[in-house]
Amino acid sequence: MRAEQIRAEVIAIGDELLIGQTINTNAAWLGEQLNAIGIKVHRSTVISDDKSEIVNVLNESSSRSHIIIMTGGLGPTKDDITKHTLCDYFNTELVMNEEALMRITEFFERRGLPMLEVNRQQAALPAACSVIQNHRGTACGMWFEKGDRVFISMPGVPYEMKGMMEDEVFSKLASFYRRPVIRHRTILTTGVGESFLANLLVDWEKMLEERNIALAYLPSPGMVKLRMSSYSEGGRDVQEDFAACERELLNLVGEHVYGFDKDTLQQVIGDLLRSQGQTVAVAESCTGGTLGRLITSVPGSSDYFKGGVIAYANSIKTDLLAVESTLISEKNVVSHEVARAMATGARTQFGSDWAISTTGIAGPGGGTDTHPVGLIYVAVAGPNGCKSVELKLGKRRDNNMDMASFSGLNLLRKEILEQKGDF
Amino acid sequence: MRAEQIRAEVIAIGDELLIGQTINTNAAWLGEQLNAIGIKVHRSTVISDDKSEIVNVLNESSSRSHIIIMTGGLGPTKDDITKHTLCDYFNTELVMNEEALMRITEFFERRGLPMLEVNRQQAALPAACSVIQNHRGTACGMWFEKGDRVFISMPGVPYEMKGMMEDEVFSKLASFYRRPVIRHRTILTTGVGESFLANLLVDWEKMLEERNIALAYLPSPGMVKLRMSSYSEGGRDVQEDFAACERELLNLVGEHVYGFDKDTLQQVIGDLLRSQGQTVAVAESCTGGTLGRLITSVPGSSDYFKGGVIAYANSIKTDLLAVESTLISEKNVVSHEVARAMATGARTQFGSDWAISTTGIAGPGGGTDTHPVGLIYVAVAGPNGCKSVELKLGKRRDNNMDMASFSGLNLLRKEILEQKGDF
Repeated sequence: MRAEQIRAEVIAIGDELLIGQTINTNAAWLGEQLNAIGIKVHRSTVISDDKSEIVNVLNESSSRSHIIIMTGGLGPTKDDITKHTLCDYFNTELVMNEEALMRITEFFERRGLPMLEVNRQQAALPAACSVIQNHRGTACGMWFEKGDRVFISMPGVPYEMKGMMEDEVFSKLASFYRRPVIRHRTILTTGVGESFLANLLVDWEKMLEERNIALAYLPSPGMVKLRMSSYSEGGRDVQEDFAACERELLNLVGEHVYGFDKDTLQQVIGDLLRSQGQTVAVAESCTGGTLGRLITSVPGSSDYFKGGVIAYANSIKTDLLAVESTLISEKNVVSHEVARAMATGARTQFGSDWAISTTGIAGPGGGTDTHPVGLIYVAVAGPNGCKSVELKLGKRRDNNMDMASFSGLNLLRKEILEQKGDF
Repeated sequence: MRAEQIRAEVIAIGDELLIGQTINTNAAWLGEQLNAIGIKVHRSTVISDDKSEIVNVLNESSSRSHIIIMTGGLGPTKDDITKHTLCDYFNTELVMNEEALMRITEFFERRGLPMLEVNRQQAALPAACSVIQNHRGTACGMWFEKGDRVFISMPGVPYEMKGMMEDEVFSKLASFYRRPVIRHRTILTTGVGESFLANLLVDWEKMLEERNIALAYLPSPGMVKLRMSSYSEGGRDVQEDFAACERELLNLVGEHVYGFDKDTLQQVIGDLLRSQGQTVAVAESCTGGTLGRLITSVPGSSDYFKGGVIAYANSIKTDLLAVESTLISEKNVVSHEVARAMATGARTQFGSDWAISTTGIAGPGGGTDTHPVGLIYVAVAGPNGCKSVELKLGKRRDNNMDMASFSGLNLLRKEILEQKGDF
């Protein structure tokens, strides 16, 4: 319809989001997906299930944006009022949608569940909208047009909303609007702080500016992501610009780069192991299963993951990982030596090429003067021996478990590369 | 200062939130915490790192809200412009804050890291604000007052922002505003759908209405939370009303209730095990460590968690859990029988009172006609024998791993209660 930048807003409706009982993951997903098809989300708002709030935000957002995407407020229970407010806003009324009714009826029949009147009423939808069918749940979506504005309302359950976007809404938006090309390339680093990295990259950032590429530093626990963005409308070859900047970056700080874009450390390691025809096992004390969960979250990880021992009690370390009990009493269970013995023991026990181990004080309790909360040892045993690192982390249990696991995966990555001769 | 309802807005600044590379967890946390001290967050907004967007949203939000809390946009790198925009907005200029400079200098000295000019510049702060010191990072917070409005700007790193709120901002807000009492009570259910629950609770909801208690159904994978809310300014005893409604609810659907408010299933189980002086171990195939991670995420879980085996390869099931290889070949590794043998084997191997096991096809690949993706068996072995359940879940790997783990924990909860004689 037009070549100007299409501006979208995401509006999430629900008190549960405002009082923090649910985290608004839908907005992040929608922003990412819309961006990928050249639609820029420039604002995202959360409001309560309240008629005047909904009307206000619809007026405000449609004054500055082309596309207004609403999520939430469509459940079968009493606290949802979005559908009636939309009827008033678009001056229309509810009519029974036969396709939706059939689908909802089937939904309950297939599950052998009783269908209630509140479920039946979910098929009553505004006459003025195009109905977006929901093939994963009972609340339908609605697509309204008003002038050149599009208003979309969908349920807040992430799985249902995502399905409706993928089944129908993305392609409908693509045919309604023409869009410029927005591209991103993200380089993932670990083991180096944001300011330190920025200082190494002063000249590199100038190279980006010359090419009209925007840069953002995105720090999160244990890593810093560098995101390059280019909003071009054709002309320069963005991919080639990205590639040139990326090559230069790898020259400068390549040792800290573990992946790109949506890569995760566990995927990178999975690919490395698979290409080497090697396997890994884990021996987890303070991480309690986190390493295993991370590794197995990758589809197909059974190709290279043998399994592990969660050695929480000391007796498990001696019985299942063949750690000498004298080593534990002499060196302390939280030590380089015990971490290495656990990794070596797991490698033997599981017959794997590699093994990662963790032992430490995850906190918040259990620390002593010599072994404070946050002291964690991580080891990797492999074909050429065993290496361990000491971590001095903070007091937050979940964070310590995550950081230690991340550190173990990164140590494995480096050891595999070294063994391959890539370092 | 006043007894009317204090309205707050949360504004997160950052392109990384809009394009979905970071999920806005800060807004949820702030909503929850402010609510608890009687300040209602009625809107939450995400905007980009752009001067005119920031100015617009400050104008809009201050026209309808008393408290405007901004997070993000204060990092040391080039893509942050919040501080300069705030200077313009409040008609002030940056001055070096000596306390902040000292703190930032110490921050780098303590870590043995070089301090850069960009870090030094973080101590330059608007003359018109009260500085909120950051004891966990280098970006300071700012507190501005304009008429009876309060504007707060803090860094977006959750750990730093939360620390500043807890160290200083909550108490400062409490002394600036007087607040009515908002209370919530949430009852956590599992094993029953939202509509079915709503149908059982029609009369109970009337009881709530009579007491001016609002109700929300909050469904999430595997559970439905029922949240009661009361916005009272004294008068009726809300706690007694909540207690009466809760007693009635437990009469109606108590078998489905596993906890209250911030309880998690793993905490509830931890408390049950500790009170019984009993222990648990896990044998995880398709959940790959998730059960272990969940159980050990509870501080002090070493009191009752012995450890586990992540038995990803079949050989681990036979070698470490003493599952007969003929059982696997006869019944299939994904079966009631193997799940039970794994749980029984883990209970013996770890010498624990209880053991939970999982075996199944997490997906998205690996399914067959007889054993499709999503088919998972979960078993619990205990003092009185072994029980297993069959789950038929969807195609999403992470979700299947979480749902199977949740189901295993819930089965353990029920078995412990039955053994105690509470069912």
